[in-house]
Amino acid sequence: MTNAFQQASADCAPPPRTIALVGKYHSPEIAESIRLLARYLHERGITVLIEEETAGNVVSHLALGSWASGNFPWLGAHSDLAIVVGGDGTMLNAARQLARYRVPLVGVNQGRLGFMTDIARTEMLACMDDLLDGSFTPETRMLLDAEVSREGRSIVCNLALNDVVVDKGAIGRMIEFELFINGEFIYHLRSDGLIVATSTGSTAYALSANGPILHPGVSAIALVPLCPHALTNRPILVGDRAEIEIRIVHATDSRAHFDGQVTADLKNADTVRIRRSEYSITLLHPPAYSYFAMLRQKLHWSERPKEH
Amino acid sequence: MTNAFQQASADCAPPPRTIALVGKYHSPEIAESIRLLARYLHERGITVLIEEETAGNVVSHLALGSWASGNFPWLGAHSDLAIVVGGDGTMLNAARQLARYRVPLVGVNQGRLGFMTDIARTEMLACMDDLLDGSFTPETRMLLDAEVSREGRSIVCNLALNDVVVDKGAIGRMIEFELFINGEFIYHLRSDGLIVATSTGSTAYALSANGPILHPGVSAIALVPLCPHALTNRPILVGDRAEIEIRIVHATDSRAHFDGQVTADLKNADTVRIRRSEYSITLLHPPAYSYFAMLRQKLHWSERPKEH
Amino acid sequence: MTNAFQQASADCAPPPRTIALVGKYHSPEIAESIRLLARYLHERGITVLIEEETAGNVVSHLALGSWASGNFPWLGAHSDLAIVVGGDGTMLNAARQLARYRVPLVGVNQGRLGFMTDIARTEMLACMDDLLDGSFTPETRMLLDAEVSREGRSIVCNLALNDVVVDKGAIGRMIEFELFINGEFIYHLRSDGLIVATSTGSTAYALSANGPILHPGVSAIALVPLCPHALTNRPILVGDRAEIEIRIVHATDSRAHFDGQVTADLKNADTVRIRRSEYSITLLHPPAYSYFAMLRQKLHWSERPKEH
Amino acid sequence: MTNAFQQASADCAPPPRTIALVGKYHSPEIAESIRLLARYLHERGITVLIEEETAGNVVSHLALGSWASGNFPWLGAHSDLAIVVGGDGTMLNAARQLARYRVPLVGVNQGRLGFMTDIARTEMLACMDDLLDGSFTPETRMLLDAEVSREGRSIVCNLALNDVVVDKGAIGRMIEFELFINGEFIYHLRSDGLIVATSTGSTAYALSANGPILHPGVSAIALVPLCPHALTNRPILVGDRAEIEIRIVHATDSRAHFDGQVTADLKNADTVRIRRSEYSITLLHPPAYSYFAMLRQKLHWSERPKEH
Repeated sequence: MTNAFQQASADCAPPPRTIALVGKYHSPEIAESIRLLARYLHERGITVLIEEETAGNVVSHLALGSWASGNFPWLGAHSDLAIVVGGDGTMLNAARQLARYRVPLVGVNQGRLGFMTDIARTEMLACMDDLLDGSFTPETRMLLDAEVSREGRSIVCNLALNDVVVDKGAIGRMIEFELFINGEFIYHLRSDGLIVATSTGSTAYALSANGPILHPGVSAIALVPLCPHALTNRPILVGDRAEIEIRIVHATDSRAHFDGQVTADLKNADTVRIRRSEYSITLLHPPAYSYFAMLRQKLHWSERPKEH
Repeated sequence: MTNAFQQASADCAPPPRTIALVGKYHSPEIAESIRLLARYLHERGITVLIEEETAGNVVSHLALGSWASGNFPWLGAHSDLAIVVGGDGTMLNAARQLARYRVPLVGVNQGRLGFMTDIARTEMLACMDDLLDGSFTPETRMLLDAEVSREGRSIVCNLALNDVVVDKGAIGRMIEFELFINGEFIYHLRSDGLIVATSTGSTAYALSANGPILHPGVSAIALVPLCPHALTNRPILVGDRAEIEIRIVHATDSRAHFDGQVTADLKNADTVRIRRSEYSITLLHPPAYSYFAMLRQKLHWSERPKEH
Repeated sequence: MTNAFQQASADCAPPPRTIALVGKYHSPEIAESIRLLARYLHERGITVLIEEETAGNVVSHLALGSWASGNFPWLGAHSDLAIVVGGDGTMLNAARQLARYRVPLVGVNQGRLGFMTDIARTEMLACMDDLLDGSFTPETRMLLDAEVSREGRSIVCNLALNDVVVDKGAIGRMIEFELFINGEFIYHLRSDGLIVATSTGSTAYALSANGPILHPGVSAIALVPLCPHALTNRPILVGDRAEIEIRIVHATDSRAHFDGQVTADLKNADTVRIRRSEYSITLLHPPAYSYFAMLRQKLHWSERPKEH
Repeated sequence: MTNAFQQASADCAPPPRTIALVGKYHSPEIAESIRLLARYLHERGITVLIEEETAGNVVSHLALGSWASGNFPWLGAHSDLAIVVGGDGTMLNAARQLARYRVPLVGVNQGRLGFMTDIARTEMLACMDDLLDGSFTPETRMLLDAEVSREGRSIVCNLALNDVVVDKGAIGRMIEFELFINGEFIYHLRSDGLIVATSTGSTAYALSANGPILHPGVSAIALVPLCPHALTNRPILVGDRAEIEIRIVHATDSRAHFDGQVTADLKNADTVRIRRSEYSITLLHPPAYSYFAMLRQKLHWSERPKEH
């Protein structure tokens, strides 16, 4: 893995000349961070582009200089990398939007570090030097490509960096579905739903549903049931080339969620097909980054109930 | 426990003279069972009353004699016991309706035995003799009394034999709530929700959420979190006299469910107060009944993966 | 529960005149605490007795005045209460030793607070005033009484405040046993073992084996399987009057553990019978004590992975 | 995946000319199966070799013809494939013994099918035709290579097809260890132990410890804690090239187990290093084989508690 990283790093030249800034909306603190970043990068000779809704937020909170702004496709076409300021949710959205443009992402967190936002706000500007001189390490994360079909016609398509979740809606009744992998029937299940997660998503919703943690270097997709009626149904890992299909057998009220941010209603007999996306996202990590150190901090592994 | 049962059994005289029949609606098979039971009991000199919606179903499927029928309050006022034909869901509904009238319940299941419907349909009539001569054993099950309040005013009240569940709605976002017991703050949690279950409900939804099984003889209430964000949050058992209060801190979309059959919308700052109901329900079990034998059968405890 | 506490508290007069001190052995810091306590209590007119091994430790580390010392039975016969300095392990041992003498326990912890050692060392002396003027609140905790039998003869008897564990030994092979409750066969299981825990023990080993937390006010015994081969085998709660019997069917190497501190070898066909002991232990809690506040602190409930 | 299988299958020529037979010892039924297989294969022109301990068992139970027999290295050097009759345990042993000789394995089960013994005894001879004409599908399974070191010197080396387990011994006290991956400190843990499992082992011991199921196509190693003291410690999947090191910090009594069949004592400061072995084992599956169908059968996925 180290070797792969080093190789990728070596491939990473030349240094970025155009950087997109993306922020969580409706936050004065984020707006201030964006302004600081824009000014700092501009002074370093970088062309700065600002995501248009972020720019609106920044303008409403601060006197922002006249930076160019535009939507995600435009950013995707013109940026060498994107710096995302906010939490993991902001990263998820940016990743889905920018994946097809192969723009790498760097995450800056305003509060405690996130699972994906490696850089603390207090170290934000100090990290920019490392970023600009190519000291960051690229890491590739797969995305899922999901398609909802009804009566043979595709009705919704979406990417997900964390997970695609099929679950019950507001009525509170279990849903009933069949799972197929590569066209083979796997099981019939009544449950609150099923989480289909990437390694990135394994530390998000899937973890609270008793799914395992997947190191990002593991090429697999996790299938984690939500409150399964069959007590022997357990989380399953399948290869990242598996084609997963969920067929809704019976659901008074069911939904599909993509990264918990986009939702589609499901009806009986609808199918949700999930496979690895042709696009990946590249995260750029600062030199001190360690996946396991991040886990230790987020999951409080150093804190144990006192011996008795 | 045996002693308590025997004592209760001894108190159980005199034998029933009036029996209510309650069935799952919209099922021709159930209608046929109701008809057989009514005729059999009538021949044994029992006054038979039929729940009015059940009667409607029976009439629509069969030529039913002119049995008296009425709603649950009327059945409650005039019956010595009720025979419920259907699944556990039918039992849950009948229990909530009849608890305040102290009418004991006997469950007949059409398919495989349920957690509460002890009698197989094939043995239904054979069991009636044991029932009429007082050989059935009474067992008391607590109910929960739940009240939803908004801005200080009670807006919904309901009983539950299995569980009161507060959970997220269709949006798929975690809810955030505070838990209080006897007025004391216990924890603040972000999760998919919380199941508050009786021992009866411990083998239902709570079990699929990794809650423990509570023998009906245990006087406790189980608090089982649904996909808690805090990995150290675990199921907790509190005494049956605990006053439980859930305060919604933040929920884009949240619901309260009573036995998974009745639902109420919740808003931010709503509170759900749950305590043991002043009413209990008495289940009458046939002579061969064993709680653990039922568990073994339902949970397939005799079936183990083969040694390797 | 509050009422029961208050009643017990009212019964608690008169104030203690003789106090036993028990400490974890081989610790200079504990010896120093014992010396401080002894001197302080002596100045308040209390007769101080020191457990004999504790006294040996204290003498070896400090110039201790000539306090009376003796073994647990002697302490039990002559003390109004015992102050235990150490961790939960020291409390477990003292509880088993003193339960039959009905001597209440107060726990002082040297490091972080334990599940049972309520008083931080830094507040030790300040708490003594509250203790001596009767402001502490008594809480009763049940113990388990366990008996191992071989070929019909009792070979080991022991009490346990936390748990009785039957598990595999060093060979690493699953054991095979049958579980009976009140003489009724419950299940046959192949597993690493079974934890039989009190509410007190529910936050100890049983918790790490995915058992539920039982509030001390719940009168129940938890049966928590260790790595059960049958995936549908789950933790079960039975009433505190249940008579539990574990019959070893096959075990190359098996043991019974009492509070994880005393161990007995088991052979095929051995039985372990567990029931609630006729003795209980009374814990005395300082005025600010809250069971749930202690849980929050020990389990880090206020600490949640950051939102994403 | 199918493609990889088909490709491997195409590579699988030429058909076997020499087949080793390996059986579970001390079983008259197994001896009978071995005798039937030997005779059948001999009649088909195959050279039959019998594992020497198996041969001893067969001879003691049956009048076996004069088949050549020898130890595993000899079988490894002279066989094109091995047929293993018994349970998964017999397969595990044969796999560890024959992996370095690249002899593919076929499993015949006497009772219910195992996770690895695909062929029912009743269909044993019927399956031989498919085997001999090359209709079986090869599947490669990784092994783990484990080395225990003390004071810098290697003291035990072993292969494992299922898992390497480090756990507590008979004393019943938790062990304390540090985990390193590729030389990086991951966590410090107090627990009953740690299971390091392959995908093959994910359906064995690791599953009963709440580990996930890994499809054999997933190139990963599962780290599943046994009763971890830290409740936030969860199963982790790392890539199959990870170098895993467990350093015993404190253990009154600790062991390392290889496939649950070979055991080594561990002392404080001992290290257990685990990596993917340079050897793999090839399983040959009959034409009807499906991994998920096997899972469904073994885990009773088609059996669900009845709706209520």
